[in-house]
Amino acid sequence: MSDLSDPTSSASGGRAEEILGQGRFLRLLRRGKWELVERVGADGAAALIAVTDDRRLVLISQPRPALGGDVIELPAGLIGDDPGCEGEGGEVAAARELTEETGYAAAVVERLAIGPTSPGLTNEQITLYWASGLTKVGPGGGLESESITVHEVPLDEVEAWLAARVRAGDHVDLKVYAGLYFAHARAPR
Amino acid sequence: MSDLSDPTSSASGGRAEEILGQGRFLRLLRRGKWELVERVGADGAAALIAVTDDRRLVLISQPRPALGGDVIELPAGLIGDDPGCEGEGGEVAAARELTEETGYAAAVVERLAIGPTSPGLTNEQITLYWASGLTKVGPGGGLESESITVHEVPLDEVEAWLAARVRAGDHVDLKVYAGLYFAHARAPR
Repeated sequence: MSDLSDPTSSASGGRAEEILGQGRFLRLLRRGKWELVERVGADGAAALIAVTDDRRLVLISQPRPALGGDVIELPAGLIGDDPGCEGEGGEVAAARELTEETGYAAAVVERLAIGPTSPGLTNEQITLYWASGLTKVGPGGGLESESITVHEVPLDEVEAWLAARVRAGDHVDLKVYAGLYFAHARAPR
Repeated sequence: MSDLSDPTSSASGGRAEEILGQGRFLRLLRRGKWELVERVGADGAAALIAVTDDRRLVLISQPRPALGGDVIELPAGLIGDDPGCEGEGGEVAAARELTEETGYAAAVVERLAIGPTSPGLTNEQITLYWASGLTKVGPGGGLESESITVHEVPLDEVEAWLAARVRAGDHVDLKVYAGLYFAHARAPR
């Protein structure tokens, strides 16, 4: 069966697209000879590189069923997936996610970069934000359905701390190392 | 229909798993209330942080249909997907990918880290390697089916160079910034 004769296919930029699988959160597509997964109902995602005035990097960890264990990550969230928050600016959504997950409010949230996480597999792109002027305003931990632990690690000890966590069986999202690049370049001395 | 009565479901660690979509390269799964995508027929992936003796970072760009444009990336490849190369060590596969894609042979390839690229979406994990002692031995550019351009950017100019490429419409894989963290920490002065 060719893509064009498949009733589930649709034209996208002149290139036939076929839905291979549809879930509640993810959709698997074939586009020409390529396959990719896209998120359903989210406009994008934001991740935050948040460093306290005394040079501690704020990280989270949470169980991730895809990996079968805990993953250490930058605080992050989907944009546009919360009812009533559609269309809000990226900085606003990012600041809200930071407070929900870590309990920190940021005086300043600045956009650093945007880019794909795994361009051979998904069209997902994540915007990285720099959060500074941090004040603890709550416990963090995320929504009731989430199971998030907050970590505050002195910036110069992060690599050793991550190595110890890996030895203990945790995973480290590679975006944490991207965060370390920006944190070392921008944190107050 | 419950997961357990679905003929496509299988037990995985005691948790029901359902295949929502199956392609040639990717598979969409539901695991409990979670959805994830996994690669078919690859053992993992390697990406290389390769810095020449005169402090140039070796990057590639290639068209990525998932993003609708060119993406700037670390040299990288799947492990275990080439006939005849099953079971080879990660360093060997990584060194081969570096030469195929960039034309550089590395005197030393060292493992730096392994981690997920997007743990809310996929179980994909990528191993980062440090490649040093580089010698140009070929043109690079990848296999015939690939369309890879090689870039050698002075390490202290990479951030400005990336910003210019983004203004010109390219995307930057976030793992490039992870590469910058390790490159700045380890490159010869």
